[in-house]
Amino acid sequence: MLSKNKLKYLRSLARKKNRDNESVFIAENDKLVADLLDAGLKPNYICATEEFVHVKFDGDRVAQEELNKVSQLKTPQNVLAVFPQLKHTFSPEQLNGKLTLALDSIQDPGNMGTIIRLADWFGIEYIICSKTTVDIYNPKVIQATMGAIARVKVVYTDLEELLSNPELAEIPKYATTLDGQNIYDQTLNNEAILIMGNEGKGVSPEVAQLVSHKLYIPSYPANVPTSESLNVAIATAVACAEFRRVAGS
Amino acid sequence: MLSKNKLKYLRSLARKKNRDNESVFIAENDKLVADLLDAGLKPNYICATEEFVHVKFDGDRVAQEELNKVSQLKTPQNVLAVFPQLKHTFSPEQLNGKLTLALDSIQDPGNMGTIIRLADWFGIEYIICSKTTVDIYNPKVIQATMGAIARVKVVYTDLEELLSNPELAEIPKYATTLDGQNIYDQTLNNEAILIMGNEGKGVSPEVAQLVSHKLYIPSYPANVPTSESLNVAIATAVACAEFRRVAGS
Repeated sequence: MLSKNKLKYLRSLARKKNRDNESVFIAENDKLVADLLDAGLKPNYICATEEFVHVKFDGDRVAQEELNKVSQLKTPQNVLAVFPQLKHTFSPEQLNGKLTLALDSIQDPGNMGTIIRLADWFGIEYIICSKTTVDIYNPKVIQATMGAIARVKVVYTDLEELLSNPELAEIPKYATTLDGQNIYDQTLNNEAILIMGNEGKGVSPEVAQLVSHKLYIPSYPANVPTSESLNVAIATAVACAEFRRVAGS
Repeated sequence: MLSKNKLKYLRSLARKKNRDNESVFIAENDKLVADLLDAGLKPNYICATEEFVHVKFDGDRVAQEELNKVSQLKTPQNVLAVFPQLKHTFSPEQLNGKLTLALDSIQDPGNMGTIIRLADWFGIEYIICSKTTVDIYNPKVIQATMGAIARVKVVYTDLEELLSNPELAEIPKYATTLDGQNIYDQTLNNEAILIMGNEGKGVSPEVAQLVSHKLYIPSYPANVPTSESLNVAIATAVACAEFRRVAGS
């Protein structure tokens, strides 16, 4: 049984402001919570029904009706956990020698979570986000990461300032755009920053000025009417896969 | 002003059963509806506020409050259109010489819509779905397709039966799996059926028996702990991009 105070506290975390004040985030899906625990994250609090089975689980056992009272999901699962937000120390020189993603105002939580998950797959250590990018602790982002948030370091900063930092002058800065060069004809350097723009507007004009190489993922066959663009998470995946294919060959 | 009957009718289309009885689907986002109109789809009915601007628009002008009454969106847009469902005649020999996607029980509407959109980008004419795959006329699917549904032909059928059809015996049948061969080491034939499995369970055992080539999208660097898998729409995109890269080179 959850105390009145606990109920109130857990419900308050539906709001970003309260999550940030407490420096926590919520995870609610059985597999997701199990993955985060397995990745070594230590929760501040967990409550779960008898259905949630995890060896390291150490928290309150509650009835499903209790969990339903605090769940933010339409279809509550068997567990709700509160984890501390992940704080990553970051300085520009840490991007040397690496493939890094920079996100310029990605808005959709599903896209954001999917990008974090694929970044994990393709061995990307840092994702640098403009301050206008969706909050990674949004529950829909957390859900879509499927636990990758425990491994990929996501940092929010002034993207223009970072990209113009002299420390990073030697690192090529790629962006996928509709007027770029065919990605398969380019030399892709695995020390690179790959910039992905907003769902509707693409890369902002300010950031576009700092791009050194514009890339285009060709549609097939060329010059046949098709969708206007690829979804941003899809374009990120195809580009990252290509950077890694070239690195591996 | 919408009549009582019109209101009742439009609201009834929130249910799959009613959409199927009427053989229609609903589209609700300004850009989406404009894209479908531009692609040549003829709506049975449209209502829109003064904010919706489209040259070919021919329907009822309504106030925002009226539209809000029939919208299925949390944040109603400026238009709601009812289009006839797209009926595609299909026979197995139409897959000869083509790259085709086969979806084995994809469940998430966002994934489904994203796959239709990327299929359009990569010039895939047919997507063949098992009968257990999510309904393409689900509003979330329609939204995520961004109009690609007007160009890609989506067909529901018995997938096992189709894949074992002697007409298709010569076409290689690929699937992405976690125990497959590195996709970059394989000969990828652009006459192929690429089978993508369910989000949680992958390809069903019955369909897996009909796969001739198992493909694996390598994580990077190899043998370092990462996410268990890629999201299914992401894996579809990376695989389709690679089939088309090889075809173009």
